[in-house]
Amino acid sequence: MSAGLIAAVLARTPGWAEQAEAAGLDDVALSQILEAAEVRARNDLAPLAARADAAGCRLEGGRVIVPGGYKAAYRALAYDGWIGTDLSPDLGGMGLPLPVHVAATLPMEGAALPFMMALGSSRAGAHLLAGAAPELAAEWAPRIASGEWTATICISEPDAGSDVGRIRTRARREGERWVIEGTKCWISFGDHDMADRIGHLLLARTGTPEEGSRGLSLFLVPDLHENGARNGISVERIEEKLGLHGSPTCVLRFDGAEATLIGAPGRGLSQLFGMIELMRLQVGTQGAGIAMECARLARDYASERRQGGDPSGPPTPIEAHPDVQRQLAVLDAHAVLLTALVLETAVTLEQAHRGDDGATARAAFLLPLVKTFGGELGTASTSGAIQVFAGAGYTREWPVERHYRDARIMTIYEGTTGMQAQDFLLRRLIKEEGRGLEGFAARAAAELSRDALTKEMMERLRAVAARLRDASPEARLHAADGALRAGWCAVSATLAARMTGHDVRTDRAMAQWRALLPARMAEAEARIAFGLGLADVKQS
Amino acid sequence: MSAGLIAAVLARTPGWAEQAEAAGLDDVALSQILEAAEVRARNDLAPLAARADAAGCRLEGGRVIVPGGYKAAYRALAYDGWIGTDLSPDLGGMGLPLPVHVAATLPMEGAALPFMMALGSSRAGAHLLAGAAPELAAEWAPRIASGEWTATICISEPDAGSDVGRIRTRARREGERWVIEGTKCWISFGDHDMADRIGHLLLARTGTPEEGSRGLSLFLVPDLHENGARNGISVERIEEKLGLHGSPTCVLRFDGAEATLIGAPGRGLSQLFGMIELMRLQVGTQGAGIAMECARLARDYASERRQGGDPSGPPTPIEAHPDVQRQLAVLDAHAVLLTALVLETAVTLEQAHRGDDGATARAAFLLPLVKTFGGELGTASTSGAIQVFAGAGYTREWPVERHYRDARIMTIYEGTTGMQAQDFLLRRLIKEEGRGLEGFAARAAAELSRDALTKEMMERLRAVAARLRDASPEARLHAADGALRAGWCAVSATLAARMTGHDVRTDRAMAQWRALLPARMAEAEARIAFGLGLADVKQS
Repeated sequence: MSAGLIAAVLARTPGWAEQAEAAGLDDVALSQILEAAEVRARNDLAPLAARADAAGCRLEGGRVIVPGGYKAAYRALAYDGWIGTDLSPDLGGMGLPLPVHVAATLPMEGAALPFMMALGSSRAGAHLLAGAAPELAAEWAPRIASGEWTATICISEPDAGSDVGRIRTRARREGERWVIEGTKCWISFGDHDMADRIGHLLLARTGTPEEGSRGLSLFLVPDLHENGARNGISVERIEEKLGLHGSPTCVLRFDGAEATLIGAPGRGLSQLFGMIELMRLQVGTQGAGIAMECARLARDYASERRQGGDPSGPPTPIEAHPDVQRQLAVLDAHAVLLTALVLETAVTLEQAHRGDDGATARAAFLLPLVKTFGGELGTASTSGAIQVFAGAGYTREWPVERHYRDARIMTIYEGTTGMQAQDFLLRRLIKEEGRGLEGFAARAAAELSRDALTKEMMERLRAVAARLRDASPEARLHAADGALRAGWCAVSATLAARMTGHDVRTDRAMAQWRALLPARMAEAEARIAFGLGLADVKQS
Repeated sequence: MSAGLIAAVLARTPGWAEQAEAAGLDDVALSQILEAAEVRARNDLAPLAARADAAGCRLEGGRVIVPGGYKAAYRALAYDGWIGTDLSPDLGGMGLPLPVHVAATLPMEGAALPFMMALGSSRAGAHLLAGAAPELAAEWAPRIASGEWTATICISEPDAGSDVGRIRTRARREGERWVIEGTKCWISFGDHDMADRIGHLLLARTGTPEEGSRGLSLFLVPDLHENGARNGISVERIEEKLGLHGSPTCVLRFDGAEATLIGAPGRGLSQLFGMIELMRLQVGTQGAGIAMECARLARDYASERRQGGDPSGPPTPIEAHPDVQRQLAVLDAHAVLLTALVLETAVTLEQAHRGDDGATARAAFLLPLVKTFGGELGTASTSGAIQVFAGAGYTREWPVERHYRDARIMTIYEGTTGMQAQDFLLRRLIKEEGRGLEGFAARAAAELSRDALTKEMMERLRAVAARLRDASPEARLHAADGALRAGWCAVSATLAARMTGHDVRTDRAMAQWRALLPARMAEAEARIAFGLGLADVKQS
């Protein structure tokens, strides 16, 4: 069901046909792949996630114990190829285009977001090593792809979150070796018992504090030495959280842990960019998956739950009520638009990885939107599904309350919405002179030349960008959130036009979404105008 | 702190001065009352709520055990006068105007929403009896006011939620007595061990199923007979919920439970209206309280948490960042506007209770807005506070995640948003020819004659109402949600104008809110136009 929609979205995404052909993937093969992935999500991962939420993770004898069933499920994912989907075959991967990975894992993210976080950071680690450290990649990537080993990304510290320039964890040389001292926090699957070895990709200071982010280097820090002895890493605690009970969020202490430098000293942050792309895309995929799952759950419930209707007859299914139909169409819109957004971004990233510079700029333009609105709409879908279920949705008898708890992290991790807004405005709309925006707009114009709404929204976003290029640096910071939202109005207009015509249900959802876009763009413009006005008041 | 803001809002609410004077309440006395209430909320109830969330409620030997400390805290509330605040002194109350109760309990709702639900239904029960059954009131109301006894409202059944016409619980006569058979669900504090007796105000069928809601009568069903023996009521289960762990939500089975009829048979539903008013107002007060608490928590955190800023200096408090300031202003706006809304409604209800017909219509116009936007903005504030806290807000180290879980019920219980929208559009804008709207608009015009935005918003709401009066019944149902949102744009414009000038922080919050209102009204209008268009398509 969702596999069919995902395949339809992919078929409509410009650029996909070329990638599918190059990979020798025809429609039948793709459908089989996506259906198998959905079956895995529905039959194995969804029940696993429910059990994992109840069981949680715990610290025992200094190591983290994850919920029962995780190890087998992780190996099964690896066996099916979903860890190394787009890694090259000589590193144990399948060499398929990135969009296949995104399309296949989308329902898995919707079924078991916390569990899938192990896969996300492991994949990001494998790709990072493949790009930056061929020797390490040869050792690690195949074992990551097979699910025997996993990887984490260790950036945040108690006093340095988004503000990486203040990282204090130090790496010092001891003869031939590098040794790490410091504490890292918010490490998803920072420790666990579902794989044989964990490699921490860790940002540490090799330069002086004054050098800020230029003094940072990237290291690989394994939890176990090659002889099986433990490296100098201890788990200080697992965070007790609102949700994500199936994902151990660790504070890790590095006490003289041996490490291998990746690439050149001082280049740590720039080496992470590719990894950050993948992680942001994953948040979008989480949002899309959760939105699709919540739309499905709500629709199924609304077709079965009977309440109201003509008092002289039996109660009607609540899906017959106009306001419930409206709510279901909102959920459908989130599911379809986010799916279209993450697949558009995956296709674009795949083009970029093959050396298309225009695609690189377009991907950079899309990623803050994927991260932010994947998070926001995904979260809104969990809340919207609870509303359709009403009282029942607030109870633990249904999974929507779990999704509501799990989803709330999405607009926070991998860079808060505030950070995404700065990236979008300062780097994508201003610094690059709107190169990504213009590239996206040109493609949208070619694809949807007759859609007046898309054209109008693109024009209004251009006007926003032009206005903000003329604003002071201080004023821009006050207006960044509005700019991000204007960007989403324009991009979602394109995606809604693209998906119109798929089927009656999607048409209703897209029409309802499009009907509100002019007013939502007006709200974004009003946010910007208000923000700029604040800065004027300050200056005068 | 919040007591000062609440007093300031009350001082600006038209009609309050007369009520205060009639009650002999001067500013000093009121301030003392509100400060004492805030101290109670902050020092006693907030820590109690944190402990209660962890401890939860449990069923033991057929009875519900509530968290430790509840009984003493409930008696303390009663001792301070917060159960019977506005009950007449001959029924054990203080005879104060309703706004005093709302103003005093607002911070308590923000500190301990789940606990305060015991108070809400008990108060509603006492007021109901006071109006409908003087003899029963003489027995029950003083004991409810003293906290010795409590009351519940039993309406919903597994197959009859909003759809009360399908209630199946039966009451039958056995000689002089009435006896109840059936199952009621979603009963907050339906059983507990914090009082000596529980009176269930219960809707049961005395007529035929065909009579729908006209065959329903209201009963008082005590959990214990006067001799202390148990009545025929058993607790089937406590719901396991997303939040509200400190509030036992019960499924109750009535097996030949003895009951006393209240008023005339067949009049059950209409007798509940006053009670429903109080419960909807309480949801608004919950939202206002939670919004105020979340604004405070976020502001305190933002002033202490340091991150970012000029890399050459120490990190700055995050409140220095423009986007954090924007987020805090959103939280302030929710807190101020909801406080103004619930106090406006309380003053209006108090006028109505004193026989002012115009006030009755205005209160009916305001109540669906109080219920809906108290719920929505209160919930949004819990999410917004988590966003300011970022990763920390997602952990159990801070209370915002608990508020996030507790708050989500507000747009569901006491009538979902969909039901509020129908009430607002069909009864308030259409059936009464917009009497409540016109009354509210006339007062707003008198109060804020020079505010162009308020005037514009009111005009646009009038246009919405006129348009929908001409629409078909089917079309109206498709447009009801948009109408409700248009109503809130108009009412919140008034409240924002009223509160401008209170202090610099509030001015920022109100200006930011007002800047977005034209676009938000445009979105509401677009929702309505889209809904009406759907109905046209269906008819053609």
